[in-house]
Amino acid sequence: MNTLGRIFRVSVFGESHGRGVGVVLDGVRPGLPLTVNDFSEDIRRRASGAFGTTQRREEDIPEILSGVYKGYTTGAPLTILFVNRDTDSDDYAQFKDTPRPGHADFTASVKWLDFNDPAGSGHFSGRLTLPIVAAGVVAKKMLMASVSAELTEVGGVPRSEAGQEALPDGSIREAATDAEIWNDVLQEAVNQGDSLGGIVECTVNNLPAGLGEPFFDSVESLISHAIFAIPGVRGIEFGDGFKAARMKGSQHNDPFVEVREGVALPLKNGAGGINGGLSNGCPIKFRVAFKPTSSIAKAQQTFNFTEGKMTSLRIGGRHDVCFALRTPVIVEAMTAIVLADLTAML
Amino acid sequence: MNTLGRIFRVSVFGESHGRGVGVVLDGVRPGLPLTVNDFSEDIRRRASGAFGTTQRREEDIPEILSGVYKGYTTGAPLTILFVNRDTDSDDYAQFKDTPRPGHADFTASVKWLDFNDPAGSGHFSGRLTLPIVAAGVVAKKMLMASVSAELTEVGGVPRSEAGQEALPDGSIREAATDAEIWNDVLQEAVNQGDSLGGIVECTVNNLPAGLGEPFFDSVESLISHAIFAIPGVRGIEFGDGFKAARMKGSQHNDPFVEVREGVALPLKNGAGGINGGLSNGCPIKFRVAFKPTSSIAKAQQTFNFTEGKMTSLRIGGRHDVCFALRTPVIVEAMTAIVLADLTAML
Amino acid sequence: MNTLGRIFRVSVFGESHGRGVGVVLDGVRPGLPLTVNDFSEDIRRRASGAFGTTQRREEDIPEILSGVYKGYTTGAPLTILFVNRDTDSDDYAQFKDTPRPGHADFTASVKWLDFNDPAGSGHFSGRLTLPIVAAGVVAKKMLMASVSAELTEVGGVPRSEAGQEALPDGSIREAATDAEIWNDVLQEAVNQGDSLGGIVECTVNNLPAGLGEPFFDSVESLISHAIFAIPGVRGIEFGDGFKAARMKGSQHNDPFVEVREGVALPLKNGAGGINGGLSNGCPIKFRVAFKPTSSIAKAQQTFNFTEGKMTSLRIGGRHDVCFALRTPVIVEAMTAIVLADLTAML
Amino acid sequence: MNTLGRIFRVSVFGESHGRGVGVVLDGVRPGLPLTVNDFSEDIRRRASGAFGTTQRREEDIPEILSGVYKGYTTGAPLTILFVNRDTDSDDYAQFKDTPRPGHADFTASVKWLDFNDPAGSGHFSGRLTLPIVAAGVVAKKMLMASVSAELTEVGGVPRSEAGQEALPDGSIREAATDAEIWNDVLQEAVNQGDSLGGIVECTVNNLPAGLGEPFFDSVESLISHAIFAIPGVRGIEFGDGFKAARMKGSQHNDPFVEVREGVALPLKNGAGGINGGLSNGCPIKFRVAFKPTSSIAKAQQTFNFTEGKMTSLRIGGRHDVCFALRTPVIVEAMTAIVLADLTAML
Repeated sequence: MNTLGRIFRVSVFGESHGRGVGVVLDGVRPGLPLTVNDFSEDIRRRASGAFGTTQRREEDIPEILSGVYKGYTTGAPLTILFVNRDTDSDDYAQFKDTPRPGHADFTASVKWLDFNDPAGSGHFSGRLTLPIVAAGVVAKKMLMASVSAELTEVGGVPRSEAGQEALPDGSIREAATDAEIWNDVLQEAVNQGDSLGGIVECTVNNLPAGLGEPFFDSVESLISHAIFAIPGVRGIEFGDGFKAARMKGSQHNDPFVEVREGVALPLKNGAGGINGGLSNGCPIKFRVAFKPTSSIAKAQQTFNFTEGKMTSLRIGGRHDVCFALRTPVIVEAMTAIVLADLTAML
Repeated sequence: MNTLGRIFRVSVFGESHGRGVGVVLDGVRPGLPLTVNDFSEDIRRRASGAFGTTQRREEDIPEILSGVYKGYTTGAPLTILFVNRDTDSDDYAQFKDTPRPGHADFTASVKWLDFNDPAGSGHFSGRLTLPIVAAGVVAKKMLMASVSAELTEVGGVPRSEAGQEALPDGSIREAATDAEIWNDVLQEAVNQGDSLGGIVECTVNNLPAGLGEPFFDSVESLISHAIFAIPGVRGIEFGDGFKAARMKGSQHNDPFVEVREGVALPLKNGAGGINGGLSNGCPIKFRVAFKPTSSIAKAQQTFNFTEGKMTSLRIGGRHDVCFALRTPVIVEAMTAIVLADLTAML
Repeated sequence: MNTLGRIFRVSVFGESHGRGVGVVLDGVRPGLPLTVNDFSEDIRRRASGAFGTTQRREEDIPEILSGVYKGYTTGAPLTILFVNRDTDSDDYAQFKDTPRPGHADFTASVKWLDFNDPAGSGHFSGRLTLPIVAAGVVAKKMLMASVSAELTEVGGVPRSEAGQEALPDGSIREAATDAEIWNDVLQEAVNQGDSLGGIVECTVNNLPAGLGEPFFDSVESLISHAIFAIPGVRGIEFGDGFKAARMKGSQHNDPFVEVREGVALPLKNGAGGINGGLSNGCPIKFRVAFKPTSSIAKAQQTFNFTEGKMTSLRIGGRHDVCFALRTPVIVEAMTAIVLADLTAML
Repeated sequence: MNTLGRIFRVSVFGESHGRGVGVVLDGVRPGLPLTVNDFSEDIRRRASGAFGTTQRREEDIPEILSGVYKGYTTGAPLTILFVNRDTDSDDYAQFKDTPRPGHADFTASVKWLDFNDPAGSGHFSGRLTLPIVAAGVVAKKMLMASVSAELTEVGGVPRSEAGQEALPDGSIREAATDAEIWNDVLQEAVNQGDSLGGIVECTVNNLPAGLGEPFFDSVESLISHAIFAIPGVRGIEFGDGFKAARMKGSQHNDPFVEVREGVALPLKNGAGGINGGLSNGCPIKFRVAFKPTSSIAKAQQTFNFTEGKMTSLRIGGRHDVCFALRTPVIVEAMTAIVLADLTAML
């Protein structure tokens, strides 16, 4: 359904090329200072504009329709609307007949009996992540913890190559920036009319121990639930992740060690900050795999279900070469939303 | 919380060494034939008894407390209880002071203010997966689709080595069985007092297209939510999974091709049977990474929080060397539970 | 919380004098024809304009922000916004210090730590029933059943006095209209600066038997839950209602009688169409008591919590003399919302 | 559904003549002292045994299956089972063909396709209120507030006649007890093979202000939802209730008055302790109307749906003459359950 959460509840609505996209937040703590400017930075991060993303020509400006009075949240539902302005006139209706590989065109038509709005992928558009980012801004304000996500890999090229570089004299300098590192692989994809995926890593610091609601609402359950709502996610792993399946217990378990007189912490964080589904006080750590963007300029095979024949499809118009570039702030938002709800249950 | 689902709802209760463990199922379709014998096979699969699992000395016999009348489900809540019989007398209370690395001892004590039942890990025991398996039996009866999971890797040793073997004359014969293949790595772990993890792959066939409830209840969201409630899960990936992050769109997208006059299907299944969060008619495919079992005989460092000093811990008693061996039927159960609920919403 | 329902889900937001009030509907059946004109009649009924209600000077025009494409519902969330235009500048902030008797001024300030929006009662305004009425219009389209509510009493004056009148020659004529009957009691209240309550009776016809979800979601439970969300409701009774407490079983029970060869129906409807919490195929019948409107011009005692002293309060501005006059369409809407959700669960 | 609540969640299961009836409580606060003896008094009150109630020949003994460790609640789900022992062998199956007027026989057969368990009314039996009473015992322990309900009327005879009596010398003495007052009307119903209803009044003291969750979860909404799940409820009213519909605003509004220096309270409690759906610090007050018990010995008309003909039905066996006599403790339990959940959300 279009609502997530038990106490802090996020409901999204809207279509890519309709009147707008938005979100209603229920259970917002009263008294949080909030203005439209608070959303700017995260909206900018999502818009990206990095080489490899479509720059939608409109600026995304949130309108607060309810729930804020004289600059503070009231406790009543907080509604944020982003009016769509840049909705081009491409004929998306063709995608009902001729579904784009990797898109929801086919499945949405089955589910909603062909009444779904196809324009710009309608309610299945990546644009729905914009109100999610807005919800994340509010969620972050409700948390003592800090949530931070970043890309660690694009098109198979890891960020670690960027990071830092040791010079001959032993000093360290910042090596190529991500933009520099990933420029080549992105350019190659653009030239080929193809697209790329990526991997995002998220870290949550300063989260208290004991969050999570057994049996079904483990911290991993709730985070993965929210993360898999982001279009294009193919996998998630916590702590040592899939590698843990190949470790021995003696390697994977995190021993408790005394860090100062009478205070003990896990020595390492193979569990990603979670034991038995409950936060353990270590940073929450997880990685998310994003598939390559579905829309590509390169010709693909598909089927015209109306005419009953094969056809070759090239998807025109502007589209991201790598949607993953936009996703760290979306992953942050989803994580903050989940944790704000869990915290409210304590 | 201890309930999962909207229409078909599963609530678990119980502790490992208390009176028993059980489950209440709400929203069961009336008229399903059901007897205690229907549970035997899946309970047996979970008990495993394979080399590398603890054979609990009791037999797990379900008692149906409600919801069945003259051999058929009634529509009223279906309650299944497994009375605990084999509850040894180890002093688990020590683990409140001296939490076992990788277990919920520490986090449960924080969450529940030291009132949690520590015996056999209490409500956080893997034994809670027994009523889940029972719920899965009922869920499978509600589904037209078939759900099937199997181990593909134990302790880093893939099953593919088992599978089949080409003989010199070009013929194919069944190679070593899993038990044979994994015997060595399991024996080695036993000898070392250590434990192993594994990877489970799950496939759902004959699921109709259009299941899933946008925006937050994508099929992946609901399945991953349920799967991460199983103790010891570290990761999940659908279709091409993490590999998708390194593919091009033209490689990962599943083109539609005509399979016979006027009928088209995706040519391959990189999406794992899901587009835009909705089932697309292909088999659902996902892989789950299980960490090595937390309890090991080998000495581990931990901290005695009461006395405020480091200590070395060897965990005695019977415990699985590889809990993952038991998990395919649990993964099946969780998946069937989720799909029965989604199907009820159609 | 601000959401009602499990499958067909209604979320309201907004404040009386903020940007607007609105509603997000999730789980709307795709393919319902819907235009803004469909809302006109029910909005008009709620606006009332009858003698005894405040005529807000703005016209309430719904904007459909999402969920409709080319005149049909899509299946995606349907969002309807009513922009506020007629928001006068009275100093409602005083009511935080000096709460109006019978209003939420005091309780909202306690709950939301004085951050609540006081203007026009903010989120606690009767204006929130406007999006409810809009949701009801959609819910009615989803139902085969017909829902109809009407006032049967205002200020203690029953409608039965209106109804019909027998003439000396034995013929029947329509007696005074409601407006005529209730004009006197309304005029008297206006003259006194006072307010009136009323009673609404609701009937649902053509509802199938078997609706309702034991144990907790009896039809009465769900309807009363929704009805008590309407501001000013003090009581609800089904079928024979409170009178049933004074009847014998032999009087109150509804015997089944044969109405034609092999077909039986309850002879009467003391149960209000519900047995064991489930609809029985008879019309659902219930009555709702509305208290007199809280805002009155007449002086009332209250306390200035900031200055710590008693004060006399006369509430100025426009306000209904009898909010109950507006409520039949609101009762209908709430009932239709509940039944659309219950029907979706069948 | 068979679960109520968001944080403190109550799930009931069982049938009247099956293995037993029970309840799973989720979200119980850890650390509450709890033994089976804690349930005795409320179970006794429900069993009643008063003249006019069936004394079931078994004693109702709760078994705590989970959630309690060494005498304290743990935080894990608390499961309580009442095994059925006194299940007579009457042929209830006939009521599928020949539904008893006022019972769920007909509606349950429609809903559950004739698979429902008819024995002793199965899941629709008043016996399901036994686990509710047990849940109420736990809920009361979680509350600072006190919840107390009592019968004020039986068969139309008000308790006020009982109450107190002024003697000629001006002193006051307890007049006839309820048992004395109601003995005549109960005896008369017994003699006639008929049944009686009654009215229960409930008061909640020491509840903090600010409870309730706008818009849909007003205190009245949640309480009425729970109360209408009790079999036989026909109406509920808060504060002045239906009488409020006939009062003027100046009469019904509760003015705030200074009770001591700087402290103000509502002068009276026409609102029943609730303004704008939120508790206001005054006692919560409401009245519940119970219909006369459906089962009567007196002959009633009904229809044999299998044979397609009218028949006369006398319901044999033991049954309450006035189920309402048992209900005060059930009303208390439901109210405490709702308030424990609301309090957990603060």
